[in-house]
Amino acid sequence: MSGRREGETALAHDPAKLTDATLAFIGTIETAFGPGNCPRNIAQARETGHPAHLHIDPPYRPGLDGITPGDAVIVLYWMAGAPRDLIRQVPRHRESATGVFSLRSPARPNPVAMAVVRVLAVDAGVVTVDAMDCWSGTPLLDIKPYLPSVDVPPAADSV
Amino acid sequence: MSGRREGETALAHDPAKLTDATLAFIGTIETAFGPGNCPRNIAQARETGHPAHLHIDPPYRPGLDGITPGDAVIVLYWMAGAPRDLIRQVPRHRESATGVFSLRSPARPNPVAMAVVRVLAVDAGVVTVDAMDCWSGTPLLDIKPYLPSVDVPPAADSV
Repeated sequence: MSGRREGETALAHDPAKLTDATLAFIGTIETAFGPGNCPRNIAQARETGHPAHLHIDPPYRPGLDGITPGDAVIVLYWMAGAPRDLIRQVPRHRESATGVFSLRSPARPNPVAMAVVRVLAVDAGVVTVDAMDCWSGTPLLDIKPYLPSVDVPPAADSV
Repeated sequence: MSGRREGETALAHDPAKLTDATLAFIGTIETAFGPGNCPRNIAQARETGHPAHLHIDPPYRPGLDGITPGDAVIVLYWMAGAPRDLIRQVPRHRESATGVFSLRSPARPNPVAMAVVRVLAVDAGVVTVDAMDCWSGTPLLDIKPYLPSVDVPPAADSV
């Protein structure tokens, strides 16, 4: 693995070489960002004022029926290019390594990222949402309706 | 496609046959549920009082460092077995078809499901969480920390 920082641990295998299941890209995410200017998180992306456009490939466009402006949705996308074998990582601004499953790092065994956003418009296979913090051209995997009844954790003192 | 209801639309291709990206299962989810008794959603699963156990495969266990009881986490898992080509579906208790991207159906082009839960215990590669609404044996893809600052949609009137 290239780019490993001191204290980080890599797996003995590369999860990218395993094919327990396969994904089909359903489109591409257009943002105002690339390698040089990408916000660190979606809150920062929102502050830039740039919306994002989810370009849905033609066969999948009938799947947008029922999505309307104002809806809150969860967008799943693929963080292509990140190493998948870094099981313990030293995040920016931290001293020591911690497990990848306690981080939102794009470098993870299965780099499926998620963003919770608002739909601004749906037109001709393009869903415009308020913000996304990924590079333009990122592959799109799924759109799901956000449901407060299931997508908010139970109170810590209730479990 | 077998099991299609009147009004539903299937894709001309099967996304399951595409390999734009590959996934590596990192473990298995143990629940009290199977085909005969599975709750419809995580709220119902929570009401049963049965926790779920995320069994992490040995190579991935160092990735749990930093997860502690009380944490809210997002669990991503694979809904193996659901058809992936049903682009417009008639949900239970509805009259007409709607697009898969406005539904939380397990039958979708990329059947990556998510659950937002609380960690009850972490021990020897097993993460116990308050509830999961999937069959026991479901493959596990990822665990991410839940962050209220990014995982809650912006107010509808703020975008």
